[in-house]
Amino acid sequence: MAEEFHGYAAFDKESTLKPYSYIPRPLGDEDIEIEISHCGICGSDLHTIRSGWYPTMYPAIVGHEIVGKVSRKGSKVDDFNIGDRVGIGCQVYSCGECDECTTGYNQLCAKLVFTYNDMWKDAEGAPTEYQAHGGYADKIRAHSGSVFHIPKEISSAEACPLLCAGVTTFIPLKHHNVGPGTKVAVEGIGGLGHLAIQWAAKMGAEVTAISRRHAVKLGATHFLNVIDENDIKKFTHSQDIIISTSSNPNTDWSKYMNLIKNHGTLILLGLPEIPLQIPAFAFMRFVKVEGSLIGGSQDIKDMLEFAVKHNVRPWIQKVPMKEVNEGIKIVHNGKARYRVVLEN
Amino acid sequence: MAEEFHGYAAFDKESTLKPYSYIPRPLGDEDIEIEISHCGICGSDLHTIRSGWYPTMYPAIVGHEIVGKVSRKGSKVDDFNIGDRVGIGCQVYSCGECDECTTGYNQLCAKLVFTYNDMWKDAEGAPTEYQAHGGYADKIRAHSGSVFHIPKEISSAEACPLLCAGVTTFIPLKHHNVGPGTKVAVEGIGGLGHLAIQWAAKMGAEVTAISRRHAVKLGATHFLNVIDENDIKKFTHSQDIIISTSSNPNTDWSKYMNLIKNHGTLILLGLPEIPLQIPAFAFMRFVKVEGSLIGGSQDIKDMLEFAVKHNVRPWIQKVPMKEVNEGIKIVHNGKARYRVVLEN
Repeated sequence: MAEEFHGYAAFDKESTLKPYSYIPRPLGDEDIEIEISHCGICGSDLHTIRSGWYPTMYPAIVGHEIVGKVSRKGSKVDDFNIGDRVGIGCQVYSCGECDECTTGYNQLCAKLVFTYNDMWKDAEGAPTEYQAHGGYADKIRAHSGSVFHIPKEISSAEACPLLCAGVTTFIPLKHHNVGPGTKVAVEGIGGLGHLAIQWAAKMGAEVTAISRRHAVKLGATHFLNVIDENDIKKFTHSQDIIISTSSNPNTDWSKYMNLIKNHGTLILLGLPEIPLQIPAFAFMRFVKVEGSLIGGSQDIKDMLEFAVKHNVRPWIQKVPMKEVNEGIKIVHNGKARYRVVLEN
Repeated sequence: MAEEFHGYAAFDKESTLKPYSYIPRPLGDEDIEIEISHCGICGSDLHTIRSGWYPTMYPAIVGHEIVGKVSRKGSKVDDFNIGDRVGIGCQVYSCGECDECTTGYNQLCAKLVFTYNDMWKDAEGAPTEYQAHGGYADKIRAHSGSVFHIPKEISSAEACPLLCAGVTTFIPLKHHNVGPGTKVAVEGIGGLGHLAIQWAAKMGAEVTAISRRHAVKLGATHFLNVIDENDIKKFTHSQDIIISTSSNPNTDWSKYMNLIKNHGTLILLGLPEIPLQIPAFAFMRFVKVEGSLIGGSQDIKDMLEFAVKHNVRPWIQKVPMKEVNEGIKIVHNGKARYRVVLEN
């Protein structure tokens, strides 16, 4: 009988997660099997559980901030050994050969397989019978190109949020060459935002937290209350970059656009489930709105190296894997400070 | 008695324009007075006449695509002579000294005086008693830094639209280094769009007109009908840049975002009077939305030089200045092919 992996799956958009077993795809020559020790709970997991962005393929085991040890590997895998401590982020496969993969954007590979709520594809890119399931489980299989060594300085639980929230917030700052002299504001101090503040501060930027919460401790030098008209006035046209991390559907985007300097950029990392409403006038000062999506393989390696060198760590709270529904409740209620990590 | 200039002004947001005389600001040492021969009718004029963007200072003489001859000049003006054929675009003053002015973005100067619906400012930047009035008139005064020589190869009437529509469409293409290999789509084939197609084609780009109208004659090699599902499919993720020129409040922005390649850019030149609605997901492929605003002084010179070298001209129809309300009606009804130019 084929081996089964065991996890906690969403069966519909309303119920809590329930135990679920599935048959993983056969281990390929270039694949790695991981015995999961930890998995972070990302906001995307919650959107997916409730089919918030688009219909989810139920049953679905979510979780894409995964750390564990290599338990098996394919015959062509040379750079990982059994027992190595490794991690997986939002993808379990990218082709490694297309224009996106070879320019550092594996996350945009047309043949990409997301860590969950996706189907494994065959060599031609057509879906196979094997669904990709995530990290709220005991094991997972992934292509070795989507697996990363975890530096010894970073604990397994702390490494989890870096693999999604970490790289997601790291790369737009890296792409914009943020450093001394750059003014960066971070909107939404949660799983993503508390890391964005740390990266930007350690890169040397002058950081403004759009929230009072722990701002100084995370490395911000200013904070801004968007419902205080004096603050809005004081910070008008002041920021080179605003990193927006929340998915709040009621965000007043014109207010944020107004905080940006001429030629500055609003970077969207959150994914509100309804369209953004932005007045056209807000763009006329050569202000840009950009998206960004997780990170490529090299970005993840660069980010982990930066985290070690500059001592950037997520703030986490651990919850046993079997209490996954409690963990989700903490995140859902906005009580996570700032990332819940499930522990097997 | 102080000299008066005579034009056609809007007195409220509904009535037609009526004759109006005003006392211009005294000619400064660095100012130029122009006897207007031609003035283009820009969409912005219509928005302003009806207070479409924000309340207009009535009475208001609009018009910011102005060509004529130098009739007087201040004592410190060396680079223009009486009788020179010159033009003015959307501004009559910028300081020339601030960060924006010295980096080529005079149009963002904090001390800027727009050609109309603005007040002349004193040395400290405070409004004076003199309102700036535009080109639907016999004369205008402007700071010489905002006045441009018209190349002999370009007729006065044809030069008008270049000073606003021309530079507005020219600079985003220039900033993005558009050339052979770049795929550019142009949405809205009107006063702006018909020039955008010509610039992009003459720069060597592969141009798609999002409209069948005159596309090939203007230099487009493809056209795309956004209500044809097959076209939408065919052009999905195909364009490096989309230049959007219309102010249509009902535009489906997610449709346009979907036409853009990963890492591509939507450039907004039109100014719809209601906010844009864009799904956050549309940005996740590293797609950007940027604004752009007319052009700086050097941009206008570069644009005129390019127009001469590559024989780019607006398509115009002339209307006598005294029939200004007829001209406005043509533009209002979308019947301009593609720019109405008033002639004294």
